[in-house]
Amino acid sequence: MISTNKRIGKRTVRFENPVSIIGRASIVGKTESEGPFGKYFDRFIEDDLWGEDSWEKAETKLFYETVRLAVEKCGLSEKDIDFVLGGDLLNQLIATGFAARKMDIPLIGLYGACSTITEGLSVGTMIIDGGFADYLVCCATSHFSTAERQFRFPLEMGSQRTPTAQRTVTGAGASVLTRGGNGPYITHAALGKVIDYGIKDANNMGAAMAPAAADTLISYLEDTKTTPDYYDAIFTGDLGILGKSILEDLLNEKGIKVKGILRDCGAEYFSKEQDAHMGGSGCACCATVLSGMIVPGVEQGLFKRVLVIATGALMSTVSTMQGESVPCIAHLICIEGEIE
Amino acid sequence: MISTNKRIGKRTVRFENPVSIIGRASIVGKTESEGPFGKYFDRFIEDDLWGEDSWEKAETKLFYETVRLAVEKCGLSEKDIDFVLGGDLLNQLIATGFAARKMDIPLIGLYGACSTITEGLSVGTMIIDGGFADYLVCCATSHFSTAERQFRFPLEMGSQRTPTAQRTVTGAGASVLTRGGNGPYITHAALGKVIDYGIKDANNMGAAMAPAAADTLISYLEDTKTTPDYYDAIFTGDLGILGKSILEDLLNEKGIKVKGILRDCGAEYFSKEQDAHMGGSGCACCATVLSGMIVPGVEQGLFKRVLVIATGALMSTVSTMQGESVPCIAHLICIEGEIE
Repeated sequence: MISTNKRIGKRTVRFENPVSIIGRASIVGKTESEGPFGKYFDRFIEDDLWGEDSWEKAETKLFYETVRLAVEKCGLSEKDIDFVLGGDLLNQLIATGFAARKMDIPLIGLYGACSTITEGLSVGTMIIDGGFADYLVCCATSHFSTAERQFRFPLEMGSQRTPTAQRTVTGAGASVLTRGGNGPYITHAALGKVIDYGIKDANNMGAAMAPAAADTLISYLEDTKTTPDYYDAIFTGDLGILGKSILEDLLNEKGIKVKGILRDCGAEYFSKEQDAHMGGSGCACCATVLSGMIVPGVEQGLFKRVLVIATGALMSTVSTMQGESVPCIAHLICIEGEIE
Repeated sequence: MISTNKRIGKRTVRFENPVSIIGRASIVGKTESEGPFGKYFDRFIEDDLWGEDSWEKAETKLFYETVRLAVEKCGLSEKDIDFVLGGDLLNQLIATGFAARKMDIPLIGLYGACSTITEGLSVGTMIIDGGFADYLVCCATSHFSTAERQFRFPLEMGSQRTPTAQRTVTGAGASVLTRGGNGPYITHAALGKVIDYGIKDANNMGAAMAPAAADTLISYLEDTKTTPDYYDAIFTGDLGILGKSILEDLLNEKGIKVKGILRDCGAEYFSKEQDAHMGGSGCACCATVLSGMIVPGVEQGLFKRVLVIATGALMSTVSTMQGESVPCIAHLICIEGEIE
């Protein structure tokens, strides 16, 4: 009905005004700093309490300090920032809410489980492109110890992890967006639908999330009339080793070739020796790799054009106990080094 | 830095393109239907399970059916809707996530506790005004029985409620937005900062939330250079009787007169005989009054111009057990019947 050339096809938003990622920061835990991506992160915390008296407060501090560092690194200060968009995995988003209490910035609280960072960057880019803010920050955090306690078993139990389990990343990743700038640019976004293939194993999130990633990616490729080889890399969030291989199968069935192009932040997050089973997970998995490695990679010309598809599993302990399967979602953004 | 006339002052967004609320629906519980607002709601459910086998599934159904009804009432169908923005109070937003599983529409999941509906409408209006969607739906839901179980005590315990307690509204309210249209129009939005005055009583949410409502309202009035009497009514979300009176005090201290203009959805939600202590609360409190009474009131000319400020308390049971106070947030929208 309304004609706008900001949408292409069914699902994809194309940004008319260049929106640049001008600041980014990532802070991670010690284990995370020892993994393959370790060298890309700004800093790591020596222990998982980080001087606080609970893990939840440490996670709150991760969110707060990462936003602060991202803002500082691009020469801005808190008063320049119009909105913080962010979220975490904790009930009622307490890491985000309590972190924002210390900031003099309006908060847009988001819940997309581990897809939160690209949900935030999609909405944030619309807000900037639409002219409603000059600068905003998108951030997502997660913490291994709070997530284990909340979703699985108390750490003190020393439970045996199942072979398909993933390790929640302790960390936070933040990006600062503005209109104009010299890139890297967010040029497209495709928000996800909730997809549920009936997986009921809360320790097999990768299998549950792969169909959601496939759904968003396939829609986006159709909308933009592009093929995977148009991108230097396609990063999914935290499918892990098994989930990534399921996604490859789902794409293959549709004749979509992603060999050598598809990478998963979770699958690569920890080394084999770190014994993290299927890999990393959590909001911070994609968020830290995005701000630590992917965005700088675009800036340095290592990638000309990448897709980032963070994936989220939307179950709770209550829904699992009530016998429900795991509904999942995946939000996609396209980041480019140069725009025509 | 970037000049845009879409922002006024420090906090307020002014929409340049008229964004209309063209559809709305509200479904509530039986108790809610018997209160003073009862006649305004589209329908009510006879019992709080609504044919489902858990309260959480009933809440999921409330979200789903309310979105469906809102879309249907304005003559659209699911395929016309570009995004659903919404949230609820449950851990990991399961009512919203599981409801969206049945919809073929991308989801933007939000968490602002009981402020969710105006968070959604603020962000939703930016998305529409920016040209990123033709139609979208904003919805928020809550359920007395799921909220009691999650935040307080199992209902079966029959716990005595404290004098400052409020009753979580069972229901859901949804609005459909589009660009253009004949109103009612969302003309301004002011997103909230997280404000914490140190209240630690999880049964006194009104007192905790009043300072957040004051902060957002005062900023908005300063930004727009208006006074309360410029509006036919200013509705807060769910401060309840006590919280509303605290807000009046806070505004009085600043010389801002709201007598006869300030109303609180929560304070008016239940009659005295219904014994709901300080009144209604929950995401659905403001959401159902907004779509059931306020928006139709603007349409019928009963109100020319109103402010709606939904308020949220961002604590969890974990933060309360860790001795934390309750950080709060309030998001404001201005709805007008006519635009210049």
